[in-house]
Amino acid sequence: MLKIAIAGLGNVGAAVVRLLQQQQGLLRERSGKRFSVVGVSARDAGKNRPCDTSAMQWFENPLDLAATDTDVVVELIGGAEGVAYDLVKAALSAGKHVVTANKMLIATHGVELAELAEDRGVALMFEAAVAGGVPAIKTLREGLVGNRIYSVQGILNGTCNYILTHMWNKGVDLSVALQEAQARGYAEADPSADIDGNDTAHKLAILASLAFGVRPNMGQIALEGIRRVTLADLKFADDLKCRVKLMGSAHADNTGIVQRVGPCLVPMSSPLSRVDGVMNAVMMRGDFVGDILLYGQGAGGNPTASAVIADITDIARGHKVKPFGRSVELLEKPSVKASDSSCYYMRLQVVERPGVVAAVAGVLRDEAISIESVIQRGRESEGSVSLVIMTYKTPALAMQRARAKLTQLDVVAEQPCIMPVEE
Amino acid sequence: MLKIAIAGLGNVGAAVVRLLQQQQGLLRERSGKRFSVVGVSARDAGKNRPCDTSAMQWFENPLDLAATDTDVVVELIGGAEGVAYDLVKAALSAGKHVVTANKMLIATHGVELAELAEDRGVALMFEAAVAGGVPAIKTLREGLVGNRIYSVQGILNGTCNYILTHMWNKGVDLSVALQEAQARGYAEADPSADIDGNDTAHKLAILASLAFGVRPNMGQIALEGIRRVTLADLKFADDLKCRVKLMGSAHADNTGIVQRVGPCLVPMSSPLSRVDGVMNAVMMRGDFVGDILLYGQGAGGNPTASAVIADITDIARGHKVKPFGRSVELLEKPSVKASDSSCYYMRLQVVERPGVVAAVAGVLRDEAISIESVIQRGRESEGSVSLVIMTYKTPALAMQRARAKLTQLDVVAEQPCIMPVEE
Repeated sequence: MLKIAIAGLGNVGAAVVRLLQQQQGLLRERSGKRFSVVGVSARDAGKNRPCDTSAMQWFENPLDLAATDTDVVVELIGGAEGVAYDLVKAALSAGKHVVTANKMLIATHGVELAELAEDRGVALMFEAAVAGGVPAIKTLREGLVGNRIYSVQGILNGTCNYILTHMWNKGVDLSVALQEAQARGYAEADPSADIDGNDTAHKLAILASLAFGVRPNMGQIALEGIRRVTLADLKFADDLKCRVKLMGSAHADNTGIVQRVGPCLVPMSSPLSRVDGVMNAVMMRGDFVGDILLYGQGAGGNPTASAVIADITDIARGHKVKPFGRSVELLEKPSVKASDSSCYYMRLQVVERPGVVAAVAGVLRDEAISIESVIQRGRESEGSVSLVIMTYKTPALAMQRARAKLTQLDVVAEQPCIMPVEE
Repeated sequence: MLKIAIAGLGNVGAAVVRLLQQQQGLLRERSGKRFSVVGVSARDAGKNRPCDTSAMQWFENPLDLAATDTDVVVELIGGAEGVAYDLVKAALSAGKHVVTANKMLIATHGVELAELAEDRGVALMFEAAVAGGVPAIKTLREGLVGNRIYSVQGILNGTCNYILTHMWNKGVDLSVALQEAQARGYAEADPSADIDGNDTAHKLAILASLAFGVRPNMGQIALEGIRRVTLADLKFADDLKCRVKLMGSAHADNTGIVQRVGPCLVPMSSPLSRVDGVMNAVMMRGDFVGDILLYGQGAGGNPTASAVIADITDIARGHKVKPFGRSVELLEKPSVKASDSSCYYMRLQVVERPGVVAAVAGVLRDEAISIESVIQRGRESEGSVSLVIMTYKTPALAMQRARAKLTQLDVVAEQPCIMPVEE
């Protein structure tokens, strides 16, 4: 028998309980063990939930789950600090295996917690923390274990992907698409964690750690959200045979790693361009395997529960893999790649006045940025026109400097929208 | 240290040797063990190979690898019978773990061999047998372990997919595309195992076994190759917003399973329609996880070696999962699903004569097959025209009977091309 204690009964927690009840026979057949829920805890015991916990022992204080007689503690509370952190730490210290869906926790405290897990000889599993039901963690840690990984990139946030897809399909602005996402329950009342890119960054930090053998490092992720993306950008991108996606990507060479989260242009020839709505996808490139793409539902109670159960079953089957795929002491501090360059899309809202293009082009020339093409369209915002420039391969630092200078130009009406073309 | 003996040094074997040499440090870091090749065997010791085996002990007889001091025997010889079978059996009997890329062997003798492995408490792993570097086996057996699986379907043969893609992209007939595939080394001199669907069927039998907990059963797979598919079919399919793919698919409900391999129409809205060239993809549908798609290189030395090494590393890490994801004694004999119905595409080459459509439509009416649409185009083959009919949902058995009757009609010039629309 495998004893399981569950902290947190939101969407995911309720789905985990349902899954454990519904698939009891199947899980026993596949794992060779009977799974038994020995305790649950959630903020409000009286709340109506889409799962039946009437036969389960209720714990007022989730921290008590770490002290109870259980093999596994499942943490589904969320947040990098507070109860989630305290519970995981206490459970590992007490020699319990831990399964969590908490990307913030792993991205922030993963190394410390993995060290503790290794020290106690227990598992710390977090498949559900990235891309919901898609087995991205297992694929990196096990399936592609024989590969040196060059890059991992993904559409990791269903909310943003829904918004961008909806903007394009319905021809609406971001604010309208966001409202629709909120109405459908795909976005929170305060959507900033999603649309400012933090959620994607947490997931990327975990993927990069597994891919490259480095400590998750949020500080090294160049982070931008989708707030500045307009319907006009999606139309220009379409003219360029691209789609706009919020992508988390990490690329490595022998000088280091570049990690970035931000909206970018994905050529329609890439399968990632066709990942629409709330779907997630992760693309990994290895030296032997080539490109591998995983695609599926990245959020929601049921898909995420599927990932939680996969971790629990690994534990039941006696799988023992280090949380980050190797000993924590072997994880390096990521060094930043010496040169990172991309082709860029830039949309500037400029005033209609002689000399504007010369001024903009002058800034680019001073940074040695080569222009591949220019599109100028009629007036869209009041008093300004869109000037869209595609560049040849440009170092990220040069583009950063150019962006700052362009923003200073008095002919440039608002913050430019600048997006790399993801290859 | 993990001792490895390798039988077979073709494309895959040579790549495994290269990978083990090239990634020695990385594999040690990730598995905690040093991998050491203690013996190799191949047909011709003198042959020039793209790997360096000079420091490895050579065995004239591969069967001797089972008796040598090794932890793992890697079987890369191929074939359902003969040396491959004898070696795997001898190795398991001697208590060695076995890793193989041999789909024929597992589809044919997998149950017997898995029983032996379970009895001896060793691993029998075959990730490389299906979809090359794509972790399809691991995903079904571990990643989606919490799901009841409804269906698994895939583009599992790179040769056929290359041929169909090339026909469409270049507007050429199958024979021309096949020659091109042979010239590029994607197809054998005798291409029948690929283009008649047997290779896909072996892979499907393994996937269906893992998905549904049944014994692999080649006899229950309705099998058709791509020889009857013409360029005209690809054009008609395009008009219908579909692509033609050789698909292996298995669908289950509580009455049983339907397994089939054959060319089919894949709507362009499905990501499977955009899997082109030699790429493979597997789509799995589970009750909690929803749809998961895995995509990557399905063949070739390096990607397949990546899968072989994943299995070896699982063994090094002490993972213990039953070969078919549960005890062999729990595997059921698959029962055939009571009703299997699809929409169908039918292309008949008919003579131009009054009453032809009436004759064809009469056959369909007698089998209660409803016509959704009819397209008739000008003359293509000598003396005959293409009559293309799309049907509404039709039971497979009714279509089978209709096909037999249509073939008998003297207005029908050749074997009809009938393909289901895959959903």
